[in-house]
Amino acid sequence: MSGQGPEQRGELELVRRLRALLAQPSAGRGVSAGSPAVEFGDDMAALPTGDGGLLWTVDMLMDHVDFDSAVHDWAAIGRKAMAVNLSDCAAMAVVPVAALCAVSLSNQLTMQNAVDLVRGAHEYGLRFGCPIVGGDTNSWNAPTVVSISIAARILPDRPPVRRAGARPGDRIWLSGQVGGSLLGRHMTFEPRVELALQISRDLQPHAMIDVSDGVALDLGRLLEASSCGAVVEAVALDAAIHADALRLAQQDGRPAREHALQDGEDFELIVVLSPDVPPQACQRLGLLPLGQIVAELGLMLDDAGCRAPIPVRGWEHFR
Amino acid sequence: MSGQGPEQRGELELVRRLRALLAQPSAGRGVSAGSPAVEFGDDMAALPTGDGGLLWTVDMLMDHVDFDSAVHDWAAIGRKAMAVNLSDCAAMAVVPVAALCAVSLSNQLTMQNAVDLVRGAHEYGLRFGCPIVGGDTNSWNAPTVVSISIAARILPDRPPVRRAGARPGDRIWLSGQVGGSLLGRHMTFEPRVELALQISRDLQPHAMIDVSDGVALDLGRLLEASSCGAVVEAVALDAAIHADALRLAQQDGRPAREHALQDGEDFELIVVLSPDVPPQACQRLGLLPLGQIVAELGLMLDDAGCRAPIPVRGWEHFR
Repeated sequence: MSGQGPEQRGELELVRRLRALLAQPSAGRGVSAGSPAVEFGDDMAALPTGDGGLLWTVDMLMDHVDFDSAVHDWAAIGRKAMAVNLSDCAAMAVVPVAALCAVSLSNQLTMQNAVDLVRGAHEYGLRFGCPIVGGDTNSWNAPTVVSISIAARILPDRPPVRRAGARPGDRIWLSGQVGGSLLGRHMTFEPRVELALQISRDLQPHAMIDVSDGVALDLGRLLEASSCGAVVEAVALDAAIHADALRLAQQDGRPAREHALQDGEDFELIVVLSPDVPPQACQRLGLLPLGQIVAELGLMLDDAGCRAPIPVRGWEHFR
Repeated sequence: MSGQGPEQRGELELVRRLRALLAQPSAGRGVSAGSPAVEFGDDMAALPTGDGGLLWTVDMLMDHVDFDSAVHDWAAIGRKAMAVNLSDCAAMAVVPVAALCAVSLSNQLTMQNAVDLVRGAHEYGLRFGCPIVGGDTNSWNAPTVVSISIAARILPDRPPVRRAGARPGDRIWLSGQVGGSLLGRHMTFEPRVELALQISRDLQPHAMIDVSDGVALDLGRLLEASSCGAVVEAVALDAAIHADALRLAQQDGRPAREHALQDGEDFELIVVLSPDVPPQACQRLGLLPLGQIVAELGLMLDDAGCRAPIPVRGWEHFR
């Protein structure tokens, strides 16, 4: 530790520093001219292929953080490890094709536990055409870690949907209700891969992101990437509060709106569309309105004309 | 735990079970016809691209197992996490192009530690044209885990070198001396990427693998994939014993040959070549002879005509 007092911590700050480190000009050497344009820090990164058509991503899950092996069975844990990656594919509107799976197994696991973990991931991946094709197996005297990487194919006529394309005047939609996933949905959610492809084909979205760390935090990331702000409408937000958020609010006394804005692991999509897209086309796909993009930076809640800032707060590692 | 007595454990058995699980016909759905033919369990897996030209791999490293954060600085740890993946690229004779890095950082780390870890990996990758282009950052109250995935391009006129191509009569070579890497080389080794590409272009190798878990274990993997056996010549083995293996033998009283055969993390290449390749061509590339491939299964040591089995033993997880 340096002698300069408490350092600034947090995953957001760490990612900012890593972006500065990794975005050096030399970092582009391995990327061919045919690679799709995706900024560092988006849900997936571009892979340099001859035809410029692949993205890839990785997500790491840890026992007692992202799952609890005392409660959840190993196949369900493997399923989640695959599903969070598939959700990244949904966020970019690309088609998952194959996965790698690396594990550090607690030495307390049985062989059957280990096989169940990989089977749960593999079988769920297969439902999306995304088998596990390789990986790395390790063990140690510490809690289990599982890390899955997915490669995904870009749709023939549609570029990947980035975080950075939102513009003032655009409308913000949600693919489903949010909040309270901790009551169980964080283990059983269905990544919105098919829906995302349909949105990409039919509605030409300007930007998308999946809700992994909470609507406020993830919408905040999209706004930062797009250099604009947003206003969430209170009436729309209230209609997007999941029943689990209401139940959780009753249990812990925190407002349900706070759960809807700050709870992570909903894995619904935040979809930013041109104002020209007819609302009926969105509603036909089950999208719920949330608010709109504005030029002024920051995230605001508009409650019957009265505006208050929404804290960009949610699940953040490394605090 | 089942009531059927102690179950069979070990990484080799786990990988066998996973191969059976993942090799189901449906597992090939995501792989396009243009993908290179690489069996499950090789050093890297094929990525389905339009031009069939990418492989990918993943390796996960854990504190107190693969490195010791009380001893090694974080940049050196990051370097190793990148280097073990680059060594997989060497084993297949393919050109690394980009990496993803996922971490679970111990909450005891400082921000600078975390940045140093990624910087160490990134800067070492850049030396091979393989920058980190994305990843996932997490933290927890447990030892640090770092997992790097690399994608690599296949040489235009040379298929990737698999484990499965060894044939009776082939000669076995090593890219350098082995044993005793624990004395320090396991953190500082140079993956043999350039050498591997040269071997692939000039010598048309039948099979290769890198020594991550020990010559006996990794040669054993190559033999299993190739359905044949091998005879290691004692004179050749003695000439391939690293000075560190001799030092370690003096310290722990175990034979230096045992260190050369069973110590992991040398990351030299085991290269299987046609007997038609002139020995001078091998020696020009610094290759050391080790023995030859035979039809009869198993791994034997030939000491002046007297043959004894070599136990296929080395570093194995999940025992």
